[in-house]
Amino acid sequence: MSRTPTGESVLARAVRIFEAFSPGETTLSVSEIARRAELHISTTSRLVAELTGHGLLSRGPGRTVQIGLRLWELGLRASPTLSLRQVALPFLKDLTNLVGHHAQLSVLEGMDILFLERLSAPDAVVNLSRVAGRMPATATAPGVLLLAHADPERQEEALGRPLPTYTRRTIGDPDRLRSALAEARRNGFVTSPGWVENPACGLAVPVRDVDGAPVAALSVIVPNDDRVFGFLPALRAAAMEIGLVLRRAHAEPTR
Amino acid sequence: MSRTPTGESVLARAVRIFEAFSPGETTLSVSEIARRAELHISTTSRLVAELTGHGLLSRGPGRTVQIGLRLWELGLRASPTLSLRQVALPFLKDLTNLVGHHAQLSVLEGMDILFLERLSAPDAVVNLSRVAGRMPATATAPGVLLLAHADPERQEEALGRPLPTYTRRTIGDPDRLRSALAEARRNGFVTSPGWVENPACGLAVPVRDVDGAPVAALSVIVPNDDRVFGFLPALRAAAMEIGLVLRRAHAEPTR
Repeated sequence: MSRTPTGESVLARAVRIFEAFSPGETTLSVSEIARRAELHISTTSRLVAELTGHGLLSRGPGRTVQIGLRLWELGLRASPTLSLRQVALPFLKDLTNLVGHHAQLSVLEGMDILFLERLSAPDAVVNLSRVAGRMPATATAPGVLLLAHADPERQEEALGRPLPTYTRRTIGDPDRLRSALAEARRNGFVTSPGWVENPACGLAVPVRDVDGAPVAALSVIVPNDDRVFGFLPALRAAAMEIGLVLRRAHAEPTR
Repeated sequence: MSRTPTGESVLARAVRIFEAFSPGETTLSVSEIARRAELHISTTSRLVAELTGHGLLSRGPGRTVQIGLRLWELGLRASPTLSLRQVALPFLKDLTNLVGHHAQLSVLEGMDILFLERLSAPDAVVNLSRVAGRMPATATAPGVLLLAHADPERQEEALGRPLPTYTRRTIGDPDRLRSALAEARRNGFVTSPGWVENPACGLAVPVRDVDGAPVAALSVIVPNDDRVFGFLPALRAAAMEIGLVLRRAHAEPTR
């Protein structure tokens, strides 16, 4: 592997350049990238030029740089997790129409919940999630649901960390997290009344792949009132249908 | 830039490894990756290990390797073009319901049309496009539409190349392409009756950004009959609304 005098590889530096961008800052100058990635400006210029040549970065307005579409294309086109997203999309569409708010598909990545897709109805209740955005797993319904089915080591890690909170109702201590995980395994669903925003409540159920293990969470975000449980049968039915399509896809030869 | 004895950079080799995967082959062995990327097996092993460490690749079933979700995440989270996709999604949903077949959003990438999103109704007519998949621009309605508004050099390049065809109705010669491009500029839309599959027809209109330039194509794929023109007003209205949302987003400070 080619390394700098500090022992860091070219790939590691490229990843730090990508990570300098965020959903709120999609165009950056080379000097701003250098500052955020903690790289020399000359190194940054050279790497930006090469990444642009490969289409992984592109030139933005003025003298700015953006993430290139090719990065997304390479990532989406071939990721098995994202074929799950494609399978789930029509069901997310139906769920959004049914609940009149938000429907989302997410996976557990380390201690975060990562949103693969989110569809929203007009005038839906407040929802902080973003597609390809992350939130702390323990602060959300899909996160607690998937953590409850993760291996014991991952659960212990979550229980041993500080728990970030959004409101007074977010799970903030290990005892409450421990009982929430047990309850999630018992019920097969999680609700998150006011955990992220007071007026909103999440409801999450697992999507199970060919071996029965939860591979993703299907969830809705609706107003924080008694009607939330009324959506459970439809949500479960949709998750089961997505699982059936996935199992059929496994049984068939790859196209 | 760190280079191999052949002068190729680490980044170029990493890109070739990503390109070894395809929508139909999402899991590959290291030796298969080496063969497709035309790299030594030891170089491939080393690079695969490092890319896996960064989450850009991940371990698949058996001894296989997959594209990592982190690649998609980095690509999607920060790409301005993909915020367009997020804006367009509710309109694609409505269009799919309206036409009962497919609605898609695409951009021109070189001589290809790249599909950013596609939504389909159950029992929809045949459609070869895939999300994050490419097709030759000149063989599709959104491709001809966007090419018609591209700079003259790009149009000349398209006219000077062999034109790949799917059916006897696909544009196959430069004269026909030249008149199709002129017609697209005059009409502001393109239809593609039987260009890709005989029973299907595409209908595409431009989505215009803040400066009035077409940034993407909004299209539907419907059965190849006279009803296709009936969808034009709804398609134009949706494209106009997407453009309005984009211009509003430009006018507001970045969140």
